[in-house]
Amino acid sequence: MWQRECIPRGWVKSVRKMKDNVFLDVNDGTCGHNLQLVVSKPQLQDTAYGSSVDVTGTLGRTPKNQLELKVDSLQELGACPLAEGYPFYPKKSYPPDYIRNHLHLRPQVSSVGSTLRVRHQATKCFNDYLDREGFIQIHTPIITSNDCEGAGEAFQVRPANDGLLKQMAKKGGPARPGTFLTVSGQLHLEAMAHGLGKVYTFGPTFRAENSKSPIHLAEFHMLELEEAFMDSLDALADRIESMVKCVTKSLLENSSEDLSSVRKLTTDSNLEQSFTWVDKQFPRITFDDAMQVLQQHKTKLKSPVCPAEGINKEQELFLVDHFASPLFVTSWPKAIKSFYMKENAANPELVDALDFLVPHAGELVGGSVREGDHDKLAAKLPDREALGWYLELRKFGSVPTAGFGLGLERYLAWVLNVHNVKDVIPFPRWAHNCAM
Amino acid sequence: MWQRECIPRGWVKSVRKMKDNVFLDVNDGTCGHNLQLVVSKPQLQDTAYGSSVDVTGTLGRTPKNQLELKVDSLQELGACPLAEGYPFYPKKSYPPDYIRNHLHLRPQVSSVGSTLRVRHQATKCFNDYLDREGFIQIHTPIITSNDCEGAGEAFQVRPANDGLLKQMAKKGGPARPGTFLTVSGQLHLEAMAHGLGKVYTFGPTFRAENSKSPIHLAEFHMLELEEAFMDSLDALADRIESMVKCVTKSLLENSSEDLSSVRKLTTDSNLEQSFTWVDKQFPRITFDDAMQVLQQHKTKLKSPVCPAEGINKEQELFLVDHFASPLFVTSWPKAIKSFYMKENAANPELVDALDFLVPHAGELVGGSVREGDHDKLAAKLPDREALGWYLELRKFGSVPTAGFGLGLERYLAWVLNVHNVKDVIPFPRWAHNCAM
Repeated sequence: MWQRECIPRGWVKSVRKMKDNVFLDVNDGTCGHNLQLVVSKPQLQDTAYGSSVDVTGTLGRTPKNQLELKVDSLQELGACPLAEGYPFYPKKSYPPDYIRNHLHLRPQVSSVGSTLRVRHQATKCFNDYLDREGFIQIHTPIITSNDCEGAGEAFQVRPANDGLLKQMAKKGGPARPGTFLTVSGQLHLEAMAHGLGKVYTFGPTFRAENSKSPIHLAEFHMLELEEAFMDSLDALADRIESMVKCVTKSLLENSSEDLSSVRKLTTDSNLEQSFTWVDKQFPRITFDDAMQVLQQHKTKLKSPVCPAEGINKEQELFLVDHFASPLFVTSWPKAIKSFYMKENAANPELVDALDFLVPHAGELVGGSVREGDHDKLAAKLPDREALGWYLELRKFGSVPTAGFGLGLERYLAWVLNVHNVKDVIPFPRWAHNCAM
Repeated sequence: MWQRECIPRGWVKSVRKMKDNVFLDVNDGTCGHNLQLVVSKPQLQDTAYGSSVDVTGTLGRTPKNQLELKVDSLQELGACPLAEGYPFYPKKSYPPDYIRNHLHLRPQVSSVGSTLRVRHQATKCFNDYLDREGFIQIHTPIITSNDCEGAGEAFQVRPANDGLLKQMAKKGGPARPGTFLTVSGQLHLEAMAHGLGKVYTFGPTFRAENSKSPIHLAEFHMLELEEAFMDSLDALADRIESMVKCVTKSLLENSSEDLSSVRKLTTDSNLEQSFTWVDKQFPRITFDDAMQVLQQHKTKLKSPVCPAEGINKEQELFLVDHFASPLFVTSWPKAIKSFYMKENAANPELVDALDFLVPHAGELVGGSVREGDHDKLAAKLPDREALGWYLELRKFGSVPTAGFGLGLERYLAWVLNVHNVKDVIPFPRWAHNCAM
């Protein structure tokens, strides 16, 4: 715990009073381990659970070879008066819903600390993988005039200050089109791929949905990638599989303690057993194959199997369970997929699209080869005026591109074995909930 | 250019026809260098400037030891019919305002590619520095109910779909407070620092201003950092100075070609001369000192020097020029700074705040030690109801913290010697401007 900085300052996580000494466990937030302090009773005064302390002392080893600090001086920086409303009592564990109701104090809860450190590390591993592979990170915009993908599910944005709005309106000029919070940076990324080649964006994305689902948020983090000169679904699946495995292996190397702690695993071999999939090939089945499997097992499903409605969450999780592995579902019916997806060369009723399904979250990744044919795209474009620029990418120096979007919170829920994405993001926002 | 991938595919940047051969310069977006292709005339057909190509051939060296590809086969992937409205002609250079008017095609402009690669690398260097120093990246929220800092300058957010709004309102319950786009993640970060210790956020931030200024954007990227157990302005200045120098040195190591290209420098020593400040100590002067310098030179300033109004942009740039260095201005009058800044122990009319000033942008960083005293903070809090949670951080396990915010676009404008921040962000948003 004190490797990065050698000044023991932190928060008291437990207090055990013995005959002559008091043992304090102190944590500074850099890792899940606490440092044990031994304080002689006369020194201690009232330092208690939850308070913050600044300590000097001599580092040594306990008989069990644990690091221990024999305290020379201890200064309490801030007390923690439990009786005045501190929500987390010592030696008690609380359900996630309760912890989430105390957003501003929950970073002091050990499991929350571990979760947020894993989130940091996963973010870093995704960025590092993509940098190594030659991708350029592009900050696609949050405020956008492009709401084509988010029809009905976008947030609208305007200056809060009415005076400013009037002042800006006075300037005249054409009526402003609406401005929205981004639901996807994909179209912007495609423009960037036409010149920079390999690009990605990794940032906040928004959905205005009236949902309390454990796998949806109004504000979530999405990694979107676009790769120029890529024109096959297999190459796209290779990219996704390589990224997910590399990132997870790095995470296992760098965050095993925090991963084990959140997953409540007690040994390294338990952890390895939970991630055997990092060394196995993920199955790739077509949408038609998936429908056949679901039809064969329809008595085990609550929901009807209907190709025209795609694959719902229950069915996604059934497939993951059935194949006992994360898996790709490829080659979807054109009628239920987006306008920008490439028509399959052999069967014009299909598009070269894929979903990548995992435990807990179901769909973790959705991707496709993009329609590169100017005239085919023009015929499918939802709004020719607003998306004229997008069509123009197919006119000047056009190249094949393919790409996908991956939800960071779903990835974390999967690898951390956490059932609600609200518990893997520092400040969750969902319908009617925007605390702080 | 082909180091990362050995398949020469890219965009034709120039065409030179000789007697038997045609020389094509091709770029794939991964770096500023083009690869020269030699094509025998019968092979070439009509491949022209701006088109995209897929090539096979044999790599060799020119008499000047440049890499060159002797082409065996060349496939044009997409043409580039200039006459149909392509905005960038070969061998022409265009002013930034013109280039910016063609957002979706400008990634194909060489200087834009260099700028965006430097932006990627700078983002990576900031993240790497902070990870090495033990900071945890926190995704502070974009949508927030906390508009205390942005009074009058915030964007308001609501679902765009009126049906959804009605459906959500039907549920009854208390009236919803407004929701806004974040103007700063600082207060959220402070909550995180109380438990995780060293934290930062690096993401989009918003100002609803009716401004066309070359150093303001409605949506920009801010790195905000909060460090627990830090209680002095000198330690904070050390942190900023160390970060800015480390990141810039990494950038010089990893992006010298793109930096030189955007700065229009032709030799490595030119580049070194532009960055001699990375090895010098930055001056640290107090606000009072700064006022004295400005008073002494007031005849050189267009704006009056008035301590009650702080230091305006002209004066910031004058100070940078006067000291011939980036510099810190510390110890500001309490009356003109924010409520969360710590009252100076020796002089209660001052706060332990600093600005870090640089060429071009003026204020690059603003930071402070935070007011840790519960009662002093309570007396200054602008909205006790909305910020009760913030006050509570000073009640349960309170620790000293200090932190700052740095604008990525201003940093890039500085190191790239670019005068308008709109040209260092992929999709600039400002008053009345939200293209794509």
